[in-house]
Amino acid sequence: MDIKSYLKERGGLVNSFLSSYFDKPFLPAVLRESMRYSLLAGGKRLRPILAMASYEACGKNPADIIQYASALELIHTYSLIHDDLPAMDNDDMRRGKPTNHKVYGEAIAILAGDGLLTEAFFMLLDTSGSVSKESLIEAAREVALAAGVHGMVGGQAQDIISENSEPEAQALQFIHKHKTGALITASVKLGGILAEADKNTLDALTSYGENLGVAFQIVDDILDVSGDASVLGKPTGSDEKKKKMTYPSLYGIDLSMKKAEELITNAIDALDIFSENAEPLREIAKYILKRRH
Amino acid sequence: MDIKSYLKERGGLVNSFLSSYFDKPFLPAVLRESMRYSLLAGGKRLRPILAMASYEACGKNPADIIQYASALELIHTYSLIHDDLPAMDNDDMRRGKPTNHKVYGEAIAILAGDGLLTEAFFMLLDTSGSVSKESLIEAAREVALAAGVHGMVGGQAQDIISENSEPEAQALQFIHKHKTGALITASVKLGGILAEADKNTLDALTSYGENLGVAFQIVDDILDVSGDASVLGKPTGSDEKKKKMTYPSLYGIDLSMKKAEELITNAIDALDIFSENAEPLREIAKYILKRRH
Repeated sequence: MDIKSYLKERGGLVNSFLSSYFDKPFLPAVLRESMRYSLLAGGKRLRPILAMASYEACGKNPADIIQYASALELIHTYSLIHDDLPAMDNDDMRRGKPTNHKVYGEAIAILAGDGLLTEAFFMLLDTSGSVSKESLIEAAREVALAAGVHGMVGGQAQDIISENSEPEAQALQFIHKHKTGALITASVKLGGILAEADKNTLDALTSYGENLGVAFQIVDDILDVSGDASVLGKPTGSDEKKKKMTYPSLYGIDLSMKKAEELITNAIDALDIFSENAEPLREIAKYILKRRH
Repeated sequence: MDIKSYLKERGGLVNSFLSSYFDKPFLPAVLRESMRYSLLAGGKRLRPILAMASYEACGKNPADIIQYASALELIHTYSLIHDDLPAMDNDDMRRGKPTNHKVYGEAIAILAGDGLLTEAFFMLLDTSGSVSKESLIEAAREVALAAGVHGMVGGQAQDIISENSEPEAQALQFIHKHKTGALITASVKLGGILAEADKNTLDALTSYGENLGVAFQIVDDILDVSGDASVLGKPTGSDEKKKKMTYPSLYGIDLSMKKAEELITNAIDALDIFSENAEPLREIAKYILKRRH
């Protein structure tokens, strides 16, 4: 399969869904504009794509869960808006455009993030489709757990606290596993939960997601050192400037890349129980290593 | 009934529940501390109390929904933490203590708010109790709608945008209905939804909540002009200093109080279909007018 065309097609589906979901005007207009600005800025849509690919791996039609998958992108986008704030990472550029608070001011940026996070749960609990109510509740709980203090929010807090500290393996692992890994793992699990997969299948998807999530963040760290700013849509070298605790800062680039490769091998191995339905998940894992943004 | 003892007893139940829910340590410790700091700072617990009183009005045992009711307090507290931020209302005191960001810094305050909001949905979707899954989903959707861009977040955005503008009836109504009214209405509805009340009953609770919510905010505006700072736990006169659009600024204190009284009468009238089970809801409404903080 051609993974680049696959990602482009699936990302396009998510973009269309999100654009039409937020098509209807509401007040205040500037709040809606600010949410659309960041949400429709053209991200990779990795989390929704993973959820759909995982649903597909369970033999289901991914189009059926586009709304639930897209809700993950609202949560990811809210986290980027809040992380970019002056009080947090103080970033000016994101996805090739000025960050939300640079355009709309800090107050609206905070509220846009709050609004996206809240709307995500509204979307996740839509009972009009074919998914059972039990699965919807389980899925939304999984996402809440992964996005909250025991996951993404906790990881981001540790990331902020660890700035300017001497790099240290345990804190670094905590940050990567929580800040990025948790929501990526939940995205993969979401597909399995909505497909009502059995425990064995869910365990396999969880193991895939956990390995993939940390590998993704390691590659992110590496790209911040050696990537191309024009392809990334944000300046490189910002982790070093902020004295962030990263894999390259602790292990150097070569060893970090080797660690990412190992994790990707583990992720793919975890999918052994799946048939060719899981080919997209396998190809996504390989792509993570080769990505340039 | 003695409404003050009732409020004290019910508030105590909520405080105990929240304290025990957040008893277990998690990392990073400062994030947990910051969430507990604001959550356990001794608010009135009006929203959880309303949800329980409304469940009680439907003939049910309020203790059964303490967790769902308490989730509302997480959402209310998150909104206070974010509203107090320098980029928003820039407040230094809240509930008689320095605001969250004054103690823990802006980054942790933003994340504590994000974490509380996310955890609220986790709490609302706990299926271990006796409430049906259908009701839990409906209740969580109602709360998400009321807390998000079509409710509280939208109202706060309009409030920020309207600062320094000439007071104007339509914008003021929008702010009060959304910023405060929406979550208070949802709190009252929550009890009805979880009790599986019929449409007539839910409509009555909604009407009560809508009237009560706006009345509550008008009294809040009045207390900011003429209240006692030491009882309020925050300085008075801050709305005028920030040129906020408020009822007193548009109509003066006497007319504002009259409007609040009218709304409370409407709220109580809406409860006509209920028996004496709704006595607490009626007494809460009367208390709203007399409250000093």
